[in-house]
Amino acid sequence: MVFLKTYDVIVIGGGPAGLSAAIYTSRANYKTLLIDKGGCLNYKIGMVHNYLGFPEGIDGKDLIQLGCKHIKLLGSETVNEEVLNVKIDDDLYIVETDKSSYAAKGLIIAMGVSYKKVNIANLEKFEGKGISYCVTCDGFFFRGKKVFVIGSKNYAAMEALELTDYTSDVTIYTNGLKPEIDDQFLEKLKAKNIGLKTKRIISFTGERMLDGIILEDGSTVKCDGVFIAVGSSGASDIALKLGIILEDGYIKVDHRQRTNLPRVYAAGDCTGGVRQIATAVGQGATAAVNLIAEFKGLEKTDYY
Amino acid sequence: MVFLKTYDVIVIGGGPAGLSAAIYTSRANYKTLLIDKGGCLNYKIGMVHNYLGFPEGIDGKDLIQLGCKHIKLLGSETVNEEVLNVKIDDDLYIVETDKSSYAAKGLIIAMGVSYKKVNIANLEKFEGKGISYCVTCDGFFFRGKKVFVIGSKNYAAMEALELTDYTSDVTIYTNGLKPEIDDQFLEKLKAKNIGLKTKRIISFTGERMLDGIILEDGSTVKCDGVFIAVGSSGASDIALKLGIILEDGYIKVDHRQRTNLPRVYAAGDCTGGVRQIATAVGQGATAAVNLIAEFKGLEKTDYY
Repeated sequence: MVFLKTYDVIVIGGGPAGLSAAIYTSRANYKTLLIDKGGCLNYKIGMVHNYLGFPEGIDGKDLIQLGCKHIKLLGSETVNEEVLNVKIDDDLYIVETDKSSYAAKGLIIAMGVSYKKVNIANLEKFEGKGISYCVTCDGFFFRGKKVFVIGSKNYAAMEALELTDYTSDVTIYTNGLKPEIDDQFLEKLKAKNIGLKTKRIISFTGERMLDGIILEDGSTVKCDGVFIAVGSSGASDIALKLGIILEDGYIKVDHRQRTNLPRVYAAGDCTGGVRQIATAVGQGATAAVNLIAEFKGLEKTDYY
Repeated sequence: MVFLKTYDVIVIGGGPAGLSAAIYTSRANYKTLLIDKGGCLNYKIGMVHNYLGFPEGIDGKDLIQLGCKHIKLLGSETVNEEVLNVKIDDDLYIVETDKSSYAAKGLIIAMGVSYKKVNIANLEKFEGKGISYCVTCDGFFFRGKKVFVIGSKNYAAMEALELTDYTSDVTIYTNGLKPEIDDQFLEKLKAKNIGLKTKRIISFTGERMLDGIILEDGSTVKCDGVFIAVGSSGASDIALKLGIILEDGYIKVDHRQRTNLPRVYAAGDCTGGVRQIATAVGQGATAAVNLIAEFKGLEKTDYY
């Protein structure tokens, strides 16, 4: 067998959840490796305006960099590699990346999720410039504006309803798909005067900022903002390969962030829920504290 | 009936959980009042070294002040009053303070807990100067040091075992009480060479920093640090008065931070768990997002 560098804890994913977990494990003197293919520095987070400690907001990239600095000060190692597989070898978990293999007694999976995109021209041009993926995060910036939600399922209805906290001018575009929205949502959409249109969108349009959409018939409809709400790609193949139980595409965890496998915890967006930076940071801490307790054969939170 | 100022949301408690909740509710345009008898500025938190965003640590007071600034920028109101009672009046919750009464459609309870103190001379003199209440928070500062844990129950054993991540020189003092520690813990204490002494302690001693304890027989025992582990006073009478179900002295919540009452959520230390600033901030956000969804008759996290 080839030589494996062995750790107490491997954290997979260098977003807010993984960084928070590594803060806790390395601060408690557990030898920690954080693996992230972006090298813990390439995370795509825009400005963050709802995280305690930063009343004027903080650029997501800056927050991630502060976290990287924090875990390195505490002795965590980080590598810029892509995780390809995870398997069990006796009592160790073996993490195989595109460049090497690593072993650890415990794992904390914090790989995040990717928001699904839509195949509409100019999408990337206007991401963060009128196009957003999260009403809880960005609805605030569209107060009193004319906003469209793109999606055809309950999730799109949910996002549209949440938008009514900020504006009364909300329309859902299913982009050519048949709506699959439950009656209870349809009633609420009607009560809030949220329109539901099924025309296909071929392009986003605008100068520097988004100012409209172009439909399949060539007509342009003006708007101030668009929320993409076609769902997210759930937990990766990695979790499935290891035999971790998923629920609705997310890693299933208990209130300790524990998965179904011994010494394997998960935190952040890959576990579903409200998926905010605040919750990711809390879940990362919870996962780490409970993993450490499990190393000792204890269930920490039982004894508080 | 007297005039009541009415809000969408009242947050009780101005620590990290309450502040995070108020960030989310006020940012989503829900009229929010945060009530804290310390006026959201007198929280007793020492230096914080394990919260994402502050690699060099941040004084707890500064973090709270940043939070106060944040929620005021977003339009939250705050009052410096003590909550004496909470009751239900039709669909509104009425919060009675020492100075006034307020009504709201939804409540987020984030009142924290108080660590129980011990009746030993000079306790307050050395709090934060060698005496601590939380190994997860402060064990790091006692690496390789001689440390005592004061307590007689499983919780003290738990704290002592957690200390062995930092130092091998740990002794439990029950301070005159009969130990009530389960066999599984006693075995682990023995395996880690953690002594268990029952002598009563009459005083802490030292110059500026703690350097020992004085026992009832007048002898002094040197040490570098003491962790008080006699438990914490659970959720306050307020929760009980309102009919909120507790579990082990803490407010019982589900994964949405929802209590057993409609539109009443709880977050942070008063709900138990690992009780860290990171978790409080996450739970406050979760409580707020789900309360907002409940206002709309939705269960937000179901549709992600």
